[in-house]
Amino acid sequence: MTPAETVMKRCDVLAACTEEPGSITRPFASEAMRCAHRFVEQWMREAGMTVTRDNIGNLRGRYEGAGPGLLLLGSHLDSVRDAGRYDGPLGVLVAIAAVQRLHDAEKRLPFAIEVLAFADEEGLRFGSTYLGSRAVAGKLEDAELRRTDPDGVTMADAIRRFGGDPEKLGDDRWSGARPIGYVEVHIEQGPVLEAIGLPVGVVSAIAGQSRYEMTFSGEAGHAGTVPMAQRRDALVAAATFVSAVPAAVHGDVVATVGKLSVKPGAANVIPGRVEVSLDVRSPDDRTRESASHALLGLARRQSADIAVQITPVSERAAVACSPRLTALLSEAIGEGAVSVASGAGHDGVYMSEITDIAMLFVRCKGGISHNPAESVTEADVAVALDVLSRFLDLL
Amino acid sequence: MTPAETVMKRCDVLAACTEEPGSITRPFASEAMRCAHRFVEQWMREAGMTVTRDNIGNLRGRYEGAGPGLLLLGSHLDSVRDAGRYDGPLGVLVAIAAVQRLHDAEKRLPFAIEVLAFADEEGLRFGSTYLGSRAVAGKLEDAELRRTDPDGVTMADAIRRFGGDPEKLGDDRWSGARPIGYVEVHIEQGPVLEAIGLPVGVVSAIAGQSRYEMTFSGEAGHAGTVPMAQRRDALVAAATFVSAVPAAVHGDVVATVGKLSVKPGAANVIPGRVEVSLDVRSPDDRTRESASHALLGLARRQSADIAVQITPVSERAAVACSPRLTALLSEAIGEGAVSVASGAGHDGVYMSEITDIAMLFVRCKGGISHNPAESVTEADVAVALDVLSRFLDLL
Repeated sequence: MTPAETVMKRCDVLAACTEEPGSITRPFASEAMRCAHRFVEQWMREAGMTVTRDNIGNLRGRYEGAGPGLLLLGSHLDSVRDAGRYDGPLGVLVAIAAVQRLHDAEKRLPFAIEVLAFADEEGLRFGSTYLGSRAVAGKLEDAELRRTDPDGVTMADAIRRFGGDPEKLGDDRWSGARPIGYVEVHIEQGPVLEAIGLPVGVVSAIAGQSRYEMTFSGEAGHAGTVPMAQRRDALVAAATFVSAVPAAVHGDVVATVGKLSVKPGAANVIPGRVEVSLDVRSPDDRTRESASHALLGLARRQSADIAVQITPVSERAAVACSPRLTALLSEAIGEGAVSVASGAGHDGVYMSEITDIAMLFVRCKGGISHNPAESVTEADVAVALDVLSRFLDLL
Repeated sequence: MTPAETVMKRCDVLAACTEEPGSITRPFASEAMRCAHRFVEQWMREAGMTVTRDNIGNLRGRYEGAGPGLLLLGSHLDSVRDAGRYDGPLGVLVAIAAVQRLHDAEKRLPFAIEVLAFADEEGLRFGSTYLGSRAVAGKLEDAELRRTDPDGVTMADAIRRFGGDPEKLGDDRWSGARPIGYVEVHIEQGPVLEAIGLPVGVVSAIAGQSRYEMTFSGEAGHAGTVPMAQRRDALVAAATFVSAVPAAVHGDVVATVGKLSVKPGAANVIPGRVEVSLDVRSPDDRTRESASHALLGLARRQSADIAVQITPVSERAAVACSPRLTALLSEAIGEGAVSVASGAGHDGVYMSEITDIAMLFVRCKGGISHNPAESVTEADVAVALDVLSRFLDLL
């Protein structure tokens, strides 16, 4: 089996580690994640790495070098609901495959390599993203441990049940000398590489992102007896907002309402309360800020009878990739290498707080991700692996 | 304790039979319903009734008469999610209290009385209403037994676990001589009695109702990487429909979207599929039909890129109450009795298929129902009980 073939097969193996048989849903600190860890830990060991798990639940594999430096590679193992099989795992498995090549050749680089398999990037379970890389960057707040999942389990309890100590998340923070950098391989999740016919591309920057939760509060009532004019229907107000979002953003801004929940949520009851999420992104921070401002104003103006409460969930500025590492990645690709901006957030956002970052995108079919139809080719994965290996030699 | 005081206390007792502590949620064939049955069965026996439970899960208490006739009284014991404590239980408990008076006076009427405590009227668990009275009317379809609740439990299994035999629902069908009638006491769930300052009113007719389920299908995708112009966002389409509903109905039609669920349902994923409920009512059948037609057309027109699938769930014509029974109820109220139409559906809709029906409405605070704020006064309940007792004497 070629190394790329192995990576493809392993993506399939991890796809079976899921909370919902028949689809891929692998949240933070879940049994599905425990299943993934069993496999990844074994693969790391086979590649000559020593493996540890930190308190937040990142799996860390270390391949020693001939000198004192350290390069970080990695990506995340969690997924969105009903996800594809490559967003996250591909980057972990290509990194392991690159180390496997060194190990097979009994080769030591002048620096050690740590492969980080992050515990949470998507934020599915607790609505709070990048838990894994934020723990490494020392950017987790104690207050977040009190967040609850849809079953009412606190993040602290989830960490404990998974085997970590929520009191010791500070120990997960990177505390050694500044690493050489953090490099992540990831599917593009957009249509650019496919359009220009290239298997891989280097990332110039990661778009900034603002997330909000909004609650529309009206009054529940009987669907048959309250005249239309006397209703305070929270869903009508929320829907009026959602339907106006696309026309309210311009240029390279994207804005999405991905979650909407209705209470009480019965066919014969006028909705009394609706909660929605709002996600706003742009590679330009000022553009994103003014778009967010306009969207929040739009939500607040929905109806005089409906109270709208807005809670900022997270905000991240756009992050530029390291010119030096990015140039080396381009050199590893060779002539005709292109660079693209990432509309999606990545663990590199937080890793940039402790080191230089760079990313290599792999072409994906139709630009589709966060969807079971997510697809990459083995040939493109082989290219990505070769580029990463050449990059290690160039560094 | 006065009989009305007892009724009020018993409403409080049943409120504690719930799936969600702190709020009232009592679905069909649930543990919460089992809890309610234990109390109601005991109260029926105390009032001199023999008690049976049929296959669908209706509790039936029978008080024998001096002659061969039979009058049916009753209401339902199930609730919507986060309900009030009177919608349903009040009618069961006032009927039991009226029988208790006869029993205490060792009085037999020329006809027997059966108090029917229906297993399901709201349709919360399976999205299909009136399961209790439809079983009695012989209007349950076998195919409905394959419906599933949100946990994937089929209706057949739910019935079996609750102690009934889903193969023998035919036995629940009324098979004796035509009863004298079915009379139900229920909170008004509207603001009319409060506005004119009366404790009770007789019902002229029950509005007709159409229910639909709609699925908007687009394409899920990454919230950061798919440009706005290339999205097929199912939630934006569904929201555009929901926001247009109020302006699309006129006159005495009411239309409600009470449920809306988003898939995948994560903050960073463009919604690929949205399911909504639609409930349309009017006391005039042709008005309701034309309003429904207009609303379905509105849903279908949302977007060329979004597939809209519409499934009719149920349709019921408006039902007129029996002039004779209604006149006797008015006589029992005395001078100044008013009659009102019911915008809400009731078990009488199906009971009208096997006998004459009549209803007595009890004033409720602010017209609010399907809401924890649902409220009636003990004094009004005392009036309703006296009216029902006088009605039994007049019959």
